[in-house]
Amino acid sequence: MSVTAPNGFRASGVIAGLKESGRADLGLLVADEGASAAGLFTTNSFPAAPVTVSQRHLLSGRARAVVVNSGQANAATGEAGIKDSVGTCAAVAEAVGGEPDGVLVCSTGVIGPRVKMAELTAALPGAVGELADDGGSRFAQAILTTDTVSKEAVVQGDGFTVGGCAKGVGMIAPRLATMLAFLTTDAEVEPGILDAAMRRAVAPVFNGLTVDDCTSTNDTVLVLASGVSGVRCEAGSPELAALEAALAEAARDLVHQIQVDAEGATKALAVQVSGALDRETAAGVARAVASSMLVKTALFGGDPNPGRILQAVGASGVPIIPEWVSIDLAGHRVVTGGVMVSFDEGACAEALKERDVAIEVDLGLGEEQATAFGCDLGYEYVRINAEYTT
Amino acid sequence: MSVTAPNGFRASGVIAGLKESGRADLGLLVADEGASAAGLFTTNSFPAAPVTVSQRHLLSGRARAVVVNSGQANAATGEAGIKDSVGTCAAVAEAVGGEPDGVLVCSTGVIGPRVKMAELTAALPGAVGELADDGGSRFAQAILTTDTVSKEAVVQGDGFTVGGCAKGVGMIAPRLATMLAFLTTDAEVEPGILDAAMRRAVAPVFNGLTVDDCTSTNDTVLVLASGVSGVRCEAGSPELAALEAALAEAARDLVHQIQVDAEGATKALAVQVSGALDRETAAGVARAVASSMLVKTALFGGDPNPGRILQAVGASGVPIIPEWVSIDLAGHRVVTGGVMVSFDEGACAEALKERDVAIEVDLGLGEEQATAFGCDLGYEYVRINAEYTT
Repeated sequence: MSVTAPNGFRASGVIAGLKESGRADLGLLVADEGASAAGLFTTNSFPAAPVTVSQRHLLSGRARAVVVNSGQANAATGEAGIKDSVGTCAAVAEAVGGEPDGVLVCSTGVIGPRVKMAELTAALPGAVGELADDGGSRFAQAILTTDTVSKEAVVQGDGFTVGGCAKGVGMIAPRLATMLAFLTTDAEVEPGILDAAMRRAVAPVFNGLTVDDCTSTNDTVLVLASGVSGVRCEAGSPELAALEAALAEAARDLVHQIQVDAEGATKALAVQVSGALDRETAAGVARAVASSMLVKTALFGGDPNPGRILQAVGASGVPIIPEWVSIDLAGHRVVTGGVMVSFDEGACAEALKERDVAIEVDLGLGEEQATAFGCDLGYEYVRINAEYTT
Repeated sequence: MSVTAPNGFRASGVIAGLKESGRADLGLLVADEGASAAGLFTTNSFPAAPVTVSQRHLLSGRARAVVVNSGQANAATGEAGIKDSVGTCAAVAEAVGGEPDGVLVCSTGVIGPRVKMAELTAALPGAVGELADDGGSRFAQAILTTDTVSKEAVVQGDGFTVGGCAKGVGMIAPRLATMLAFLTTDAEVEPGILDAAMRRAVAPVFNGLTVDDCTSTNDTVLVLASGVSGVRCEAGSPELAALEAALAEAARDLVHQIQVDAEGATKALAVQVSGALDRETAAGVARAVASSMLVKTALFGGDPNPGRILQAVGASGVPIIPEWVSIDLAGHRVVTGGVMVSFDEGACAEALKERDVAIEVDLGLGEEQATAFGCDLGYEYVRINAEYTT
């Protein structure tokens, strides 16, 4: 049910003819009574038009609808692209009620081409007509591009629910947000508190994700809170803590689904870095390891190769003391005090056959930690990205 | 002839039995009258033992010999590895004369294992016996690992000569130096002037190279000047300018040979970024584009894909003004003022079939520029790095 699992939301997904594949490509999410809303957006210097427009519309902290098209990213389209995104919001507002700035807009697909506005506008009445309180899965389908499966998550809280969906399997190395992800809840939260909760609970999870270390122009994470459960989340309250935990769990669930469906990936990699002086350096090391092409190909080949992990830690640019670093690969200690130690390579190779593989790096410097979520690099990633324009 | 093209140098390359392939794996380069010497080394936080030892030995600015083994990188080997490198220098000094700190040592191969010292020591007399003033090519052969061809360069100056050789086709994203590269000249240069000349003329070329954005633990570039040509290069002299130009040309030649032989690569990519406020930001953008997995796979597929280039420029972390950016791909203008423009995709795809492909990015901000040297990402890179421990 994804985004319609919490009360207060209706959604739909229809075929507008924007994608050559002929699959659903227009998703609509509506909070009939409105919702508190917060967003995280790409830090790419070429933000897509819908990113710019949604950031502007989010200033009020409230939203009534989210419209998403796949097929064209509406990035590098200049002023014409901005007009298309603004026009889309106006058309949605007219169809579902409310003001244009109560509509958030997202696009995903090929960078460069403009959105097929005639097709989108023509399909909008159908999308409105099919809005349903069990339409979350159809919405989740409509936002996909090279994804092979839709990504949905539902977390049940005490008296409230969090739902979510996401898309994205390539050009993924979010700096502030990732691809497209939508989280909804029927908890009651003021916009400012929701925004802070999202930055604490959701941002580190999506920021820890890397498929190919390429930061998209369209990355967007939106969180909408309808409030209809009546569970009120005040600042510092246990309700807010419970909501943050549920949001983080839903985000982690979606990120894992992206890892598993990442372009050409066969394995999900979690790199946990502990013993850091601060969270930022821990995240920097974790990301360097998870992004390393040599670590990723070794993972694909099931090759226990501690030297490549050590190389990536040392090249991360984070100040470390080599003699204090230890590394575990799939549960096997492979580096102690910066020096490679002998380990059971057969058992380690066996452990690398699992779909989920963990690398743990202890910097031995402090108490902070962070985790990066990655995947392996195989022939399929090359095939997908060499043979098709994406 | 590589490093023995200039006068004052003898070299050899022999089979010591360090590599499983049974190929030559021990190289020796000797300047019988000594040479001014300067070096650039990896900035990885886990420098290999030979890097640490060579840096120490270079403090005098003079060197009499360089010994290189392939097969084991002697990295992440702790104190034992340091002892092995120190012992290697002592053994070479005893065999060719001079003090141990007149010997520079380099290792390349698998990270973790210690150098097979018994085999190396046993092979040393043979390497000394085969030293010859035309031994440069055998030296160049002995330093290779996954390289398929040796990389050699000779540049003739006015009264002096520059020779060089290099190895390395993977784990290449030098921050200060790259893989192993050796440049020799018979020009006469004081150590301090040679060091400055190397940093000006040679460092930017090797720092511009990226195969997989992975910075090795062993990267080393050494420049030795025997002085026997009698062409004296004083600070600020036209002779020094000519030497710098020759060093840069030899370095560029070697880097291009590495690009072409890069693991699994079919194309050499040059990304020139102009219009930057300073050289550093130009280099940052150039490197971001040349390192992008999506740009590299598009290049492999011969896919004219400006969106991926724009994405990489925007994600580079360098402050830019999107509206002032223009991009040319293989001679075709694809982005103007931050907006994708229509171009002859057929002609561009045809141009992408060439072995050498150029991407030009104009930031429109200032006068500075830099170039990054990369390659494409194909199935072979995955095969090489997934199926073998390197």
